[in-house]
Amino acid sequence: MAELSRESGVPVATIKYYLRERLLPPGERTSPNQALYDETHIRRLKLIRALLEVGGLSVATVADVLAALDEQISTHKVLGIASHGLPMPKAGGDAQAREWAAEQVDRVVAERGWQLRPDHPVVDSLVGTLSAFAELGRPELIAQLSGYAELADRIAELDLRTIADLPSTESIVEGAVIATVLGDVVFAALRRLAQQQVSARTFGDRSG
Amino acid sequence: MAELSRESGVPVATIKYYLRERLLPPGERTSPNQALYDETHIRRLKLIRALLEVGGLSVATVADVLAALDEQISTHKVLGIASHGLPMPKAGGDAQAREWAAEQVDRVVAERGWQLRPDHPVVDSLVGTLSAFAELGRPELIAQLSGYAELADRIAELDLRTIADLPSTESIVEGAVIATVLGDVVFAALRRLAQQQVSARTFGDRSG
Repeated sequence: MAELSRESGVPVATIKYYLRERLLPPGERTSPNQALYDETHIRRLKLIRALLEVGGLSVATVADVLAALDEQISTHKVLGIASHGLPMPKAGGDAQAREWAAEQVDRVVAERGWQLRPDHPVVDSLVGTLSAFAELGRPELIAQLSGYAELADRIAELDLRTIADLPSTESIVEGAVIATVLGDVVFAALRRLAQQQVSARTFGDRSG
Repeated sequence: MAELSRESGVPVATIKYYLRERLLPPGERTSPNQALYDETHIRRLKLIRALLEVGGLSVATVADVLAALDEQISTHKVLGIASHGLPMPKAGGDAQAREWAAEQVDRVVAERGWQLRPDHPVVDSLVGTLSAFAELGRPELIAQLSGYAELADRIAELDLRTIADLPSTESIVEGAVIATVLGDVVFAALRRLAQQQVSARTFGDRSG
C-alpha cells in the first residue's frame, strides 16, 4: 500500500478510507500485512480523487459512477451520472419569476435543438439563476441568452475534443470531471480578462 | 424611509445599515423624523444591493466603487474597480506548477493581444487554477486553452453589448456586476447542457 501511495500520490490514510467505503477494490492479499495492487488500482485511485476532491461529488455518487464504469455501459451514460452529481447552485426564485425564466430556457433549448429531459437538474439550476434577474428587476440583462447558448455549444465541442482521445472510459470520465469543474473557473477568469479589454475599447478614455 | 423601502424593495433595516456605513447619502431632513429621498437614492440603493448581495463585494470595495462613480471618472475605470472586487478563487499551486501555468497564460494573453498588468488579480487566479491541472498530472486537459480564450472574447462582446446601452454609468456598473456574477453561473449551466448534447453525439449508443 505504501508503494500504491507513492505511485498514485494519494496518502495511505486516504487509500484506506477509499477501501473502507468500497470505492477502491481490495488488492490481492499475499500475506497478512501485504496486498498486491496493479495499474487498475492506480487508475481507479486517480479517478476517485478527481470525483471527490475536484468534482465535489458525494461518496454515494462516486460509487454510482464506478458501478456504471464496471458495468461497461456507454461512456455517454457514465459521463451523465458524473455530470448529474456535480454541484450546481439550486437558486430558488418565486413562482412568477421562475415561470418567466422557464420560458426563456425553453426558447433557447428549442433554438439549439438540445434534447433534454424536462426534469434535468441543470435545467432547474438554470431556471433558478435566470429567475434572479427578474427578481432583481433586470430581465433585460439576459437579452443575449441565445448568443451565450450558441457559444456554450462551441465551448462544449472544445471540452469534448479535450477528452475524446483519452485512452479509456475511466480516463475520459476522470478528465471530463476535472475539465468541467476546473474548466468553469478557468473560463470565468478568461471571461473577466476579455471583458476588461472590451470595456477599455468601449468605455475607455484617452486620459490615462 | 418607509416609502424609499417600498419603492426600492430594500428593507428599512438594510437601508439604515447602508446609511450608517455611509454607502447611501442621507436624505434631505424635513423634520426630526422625516427625510426626503429622491430617484438618485433609489438608483444608488439598487446598485449597493447588487454589489454587496449579488456580487459579494466587501463594504470597503463598494465604498470605493461609489466614490469613483461620484468623481465621474470613466465608466471603464469604475467597472475595473468593481471587477477587481468580485470574488475569484485564489488557488495556490506549487512553484513549478505555477511557473508552467504562467507560461500558458502568457502565451494566450499574447495570442489574444490582451493588455494586462502582470499583477492583475484575475491573472493570478487563472494561474492558480491552471496549475491545479499540472498538480493533478493532467496538463493535456488544457490543450484547448487558446480556443477557450477566443470564445471568452466573443462572450465578453455579448456581455458588453448587454450593458453598453444602459442609461447611466450607475446602471451600467450595477448591470455589469449582476451580469458578471450571475452570468458565470448561467454560462456554466448552458455549458453543461451543451456538453451533454455533444457527449451523446460523440459517445452515445443507439441502444437507449
